[in-house]
Parts: sequence; C-alpha cells; structure tokens
Amino acid sequence: MLYGALEAGGTKMVCAIGDETGKIYEQVSIPTTTPDETMPEIISYFRDKGIEAIGIACFGPIDLDRKSETYGFITSTPKTAWKKFNIVGYVEKALGIPVGFDTDVNGSLLGEITYGCAQGLTDAIYLTIGTGIGGGVMTNGKLLHGMMHPELGHVIIAKRSDDKGQCVCPYHDSCLEGLAAGPSIEKRWGRSAKELTDDAAVWELEADYIGTALVNYCMTLSPQKIILGGGVMHQMQLFPLIRRVFKEKMAGYINTKTLENLDEYIVPASLNDDQGIMGAIKLAIDAKTELL
Amino acid sequence: MLYGALEAGGTKMVCAIGDETGKIYEQVSIPTTTPDETMPEIISYFRDKGIEAIGIACFGPIDLDRKSETYGFITSTPKTAWKKFNIVGYVEKALGIPVGFDTDVNGSLLGEITYGCAQGLTDAIYLTIGTGIGGGVMTNGKLLHGMMHPELGHVIIAKRSDDKGQCVCPYHDSCLEGLAAGPSIEKRWGRSAKELTDDAAVWELEADYIGTALVNYCMTLSPQKIILGGGVMHQMQLFPLIRRVFKEKMAGYINTKTLENLDEYIVPASLNDDQGIMGAIKLAIDAKTELL
Repeated sequence: MLYGALEAGGTKMVCAIGDETGKIYEQVSIPTTTPDETMPEIISYFRDKGIEAIGIACFGPIDLDRKSETYGFITSTPKTAWKKFNIVGYVEKALGIPVGFDTDVNGSLLGEITYGCAQGLTDAIYLTIGTGIGGGVMTNGKLLHGMMHPELGHVIIAKRSDDKGQCVCPYHDSCLEGLAAGPSIEKRWGRSAKELTDDAAVWELEADYIGTALVNYCMTLSPQKIILGGGVMHQMQLFPLIRRVFKEKMAGYINTKTLENLDEYIVPASLNDDQGIMGAIKLAIDAKTELL
Repeated sequence: MLYGALEAGGTKMVCAIGDETGKIYEQVSIPTTTPDETMPEIISYFRDKGIEAIGIACFGPIDLDRKSETYGFITSTPKTAWKKFNIVGYVEKALGIPVGFDTDVNGSLLGEITYGCAQGLTDAIYLTIGTGIGGGVMTNGKLLHGMMHPELGHVIIAKRSDDKGQCVCPYHDSCLEGLAAGPSIEKRWGRSAKELTDDAAVWELEADYIGTALVNYCMTLSPQKIILGGGVMHQMQLFPLIRRVFKEKMAGYINTKTLENLDEYIVPASLNDDQGIMGAIKLAIDAKTELL
C-alpha cells in the first residue's frame, strides 16, 4: 500500500511517496510561494500515484482541533498568503483520500518514534533548531496538542549578561528562538553558524541557552528522550556541550536510570533529515487506519 | 460503594472515606513521623471501614512506573525515614484491596478534573505554591508521568535584578520554587506571606516569577486551563497580577479563543482545599475499575 507525505514548510513543500515500513520511493521539492501557485503543483504531483491516504506535517501555527470550524487551517502565520488557508480541506477535496494532519515538528517526532531512535517510547520531545526553533511532543503515546500545540521555541530564557547579541524574536524580549536560532547566531557574531564552527565561544553560549531550555522541558514534560534536529544541530560539537549544561543545571535533582546516560538521552535526529517526511507517512497511515 | 483516600504529605497524612460522587463522609489527619509509627495508624483507620479500594496521592519523588521493581516506592525524598519506603506495597498487603497511586499534585489535578473546575478537559495543569512548588499535569486525558513525573517547581527562572532575596532551593541557583515558594518569600522580606498581604511590592515580584513560569508551561504543555492552589495562592490579589504578567510575556504570540478570557484560564482551585483528597478518591475508583 502506498501513502503520500507532504512536509509543508515556509520555504519549500517536500512531497513524497512511501510505504508503511517508512521506505520512501520518490520525493520532490516545490517552492512555497502562494496557495494559488503552490497547491495545484502539489496536487498534480500526488494525483494518479495510487496513494491510499496522505499525511501533512505542516508549518504553523495550525488548527488541530477536530471540533473546530477551522480544523485543518494554517492560522496566524506571518506568511500572509497562507494565513487562514484550509490546507487539509484543499487536499481532501482535490484527492478524495483520508488526510492526516499535524505540526511539522510533531511529524518529525512521529518519524523518530515510528522508524527512528525513539521507537517504543511513549514520552519524547523533538526539537528543531534552524532558522526558527520549534518542538514536537509525545506524551502517554500520543502527539500533544492540548489547547493548540506546543511552541517550544518561545519559552522565556534569560539573556546571559555577557551576551552582546540580542533577542531577535519579534514577539518576545528574551525567548529561546530569539536567542538561539540561526538568525540570532548570525546577527550576534556577524557570520552564519556554518562559518563559526571553530569558534568555541559561539557554541558555549549556544549550548547554555539550549541546555537551559532542555532542563525546563525535562522538569515540565518528563520525557524519556530528547531528540535535537535542524540545521544548527548539524554542528555536532554542540551535543557534548549541551549535555554538560543540562547536567550542571539539573544539579542532581532528578535521579532516574534514564538520566544516568545522557549520551542516550539527548540525541541527534537519526533519520538523515527524513524524519519529517517519514512522520508524514505515519500520519497518512494513521488517517487511513482511523477509517477502518 | 465506599472508597478510601490517603493524601500523603510530608507533615501530615490526611485519610478520608468517600464515594464515587466525590462526597467525603469522614476525614482524619495523622502526623507524618516515620513509617513505623505513621503507617499502622493509617491502616487502623481504614480497616473495617468497608472500602472497596484506596487511592494514595503522595509526596515525592515517587516511582510510578508499573514495570519498575520499585513501583509504589517513595524514592529520593529528603525525609530520610521515608526514603525507599514501599507505601503502595505496605497498604496493599495490610488492606488487601486495590491501591491507586500518583503524586500529590496529580491527585489534586485529578480532583479538579473529576469534580471541580476542570471537568471535561483533557489537558490541564494544577500548580501548588506553598512551602514548596509542585505541579500535576494531564495531557490527552491522562495524568502525565513520562520518565518519572513532572517537577514543575524546579524549572529555571531568572532572578530579577532588583530582587534582593535569594534562591533558597538547595539544588538550583535560580528556580521557581527557590524564588517564589513560601520560605523564599519569608526569607526575602523577613515576614511570612500572610503578614505581607498589604505590601504591593511583594506580590508584584511574586506574580512576575509565577507568571513567567506559566508562560513557559503554556508554550510547553499547551494546557486548556491552569489551576493554582496552595497556601501562597490564598493571597487572592495574586490572580489579577499573574494574569497581567502572563499576558504581557505571551505578547500575543499564541491566539486562541481560550486565551481571550484569562479569568477563566488561570484560576484558583475550586474544591476548598479538598482537591487532593477528592483526587485520591478518584485514584481509588480507577484502581478498582481497572480490575473489572
């Protein structure tokens, strides 16, 4: 059985065809411009591919409340052409198959839970750190939505007194995304993260912000694993630094077997940046199964 | 059908008998000294009361993992007499009835979800602010345990630069409990919270710390309601102050209908400080139901 997967991002739409084992048979990337331009291209890609259902892992904020009149809509995004666009309704009408829907980051987490490093876990976090910061959360074996969905990038974090940079978030004076996402790094140090690989001060500060946020996620969600993905996390030297900050700031308050081995607790994404598209396959499978 | 409820706290053990409507028929309080002294008193209270099951809402940290060898134990508490005490095993053996078990704060949340102001919700937080700070969490209709259980009081919060007090947490340089629980207030201002009711500066600072933490819980857990209980929260003037800080620091980033009315979003506990014991009744009911 074949399934469609759409990883809907602010700059590109990744479309793929896969099966229930998570195997991806083919994949294309379509630039995200306006719904009028982009959506017909997406539909024409998926049409006649023989897929049984499609999963959409979507940039947000989005409405995930099935009882809401705007379920399946992209809501208050700064990308104005997509504001209040009913992406689920559009795809459902055009393809006439079940549509699974969740945030991009819940999609990535679902990919890791189903096919990757978090298999068998019921409680985990996937945090992506790139041009923005966002996170997917699973609790009790289900993706977390709650009132809306988590916005892990916008937790308040104190700016360190020796940080000469500034919080670049347009909303918050001092939040994780504003202090630690790619654009913040570039603005603070005058060069992109990639060009700063060998500058220890850059990564010491970055790890401090990320590690502090992870302590707070751990106190709040009590996850069994924390997976870090996104462009900034390709800087692998960050992992030991983040684990050190995490350990220092937890200060031994929580003692579990799981926390004894932080190398297995705070880990890189394991699916070669296919976690999002593989998670979207699983969203499709779940949408199909729901109807059976 | 009658159920037993034990709200196990560090200073007292509240024992009660109730029914499935949450009605409490009788209640006693036994001082928490050592297991050898305290437990036989508890058992002799409950014996011959005709209860079908008992629920324990317990101070922590505790082991909630049913697959663990130490399920039902109090684990790394500073109250040394109770460290590694198998409270569930003891009660089960002595009374021979099903035993429900969770944290004290999950118990209080369950009380509010079942009988109080959070009925019908699937995602909510109960935060108690008193001699310590702790929180219970429900996500997707289930109490959250995860790796262990949340420890909402120990999230890292920056100490405000004009705060002349200090973080009194023995573990953390700067955490919510260390900055905002009763002992911290008393140490900072030289008098107890009750004696400071009319001092605006006290509550402005207190609301700043609590409101900041609530923003982070909201970004992380996306709850449908946040319930605040405990001795410090009997200072009702705190509620409008906390809501104001919350609104300012959210800065309009999340737009939902729920957040439009903060008076209904950030609310006092609704069960006259019986939320814990009523939640323990529900733990007992669930333990009984599980066996049917």
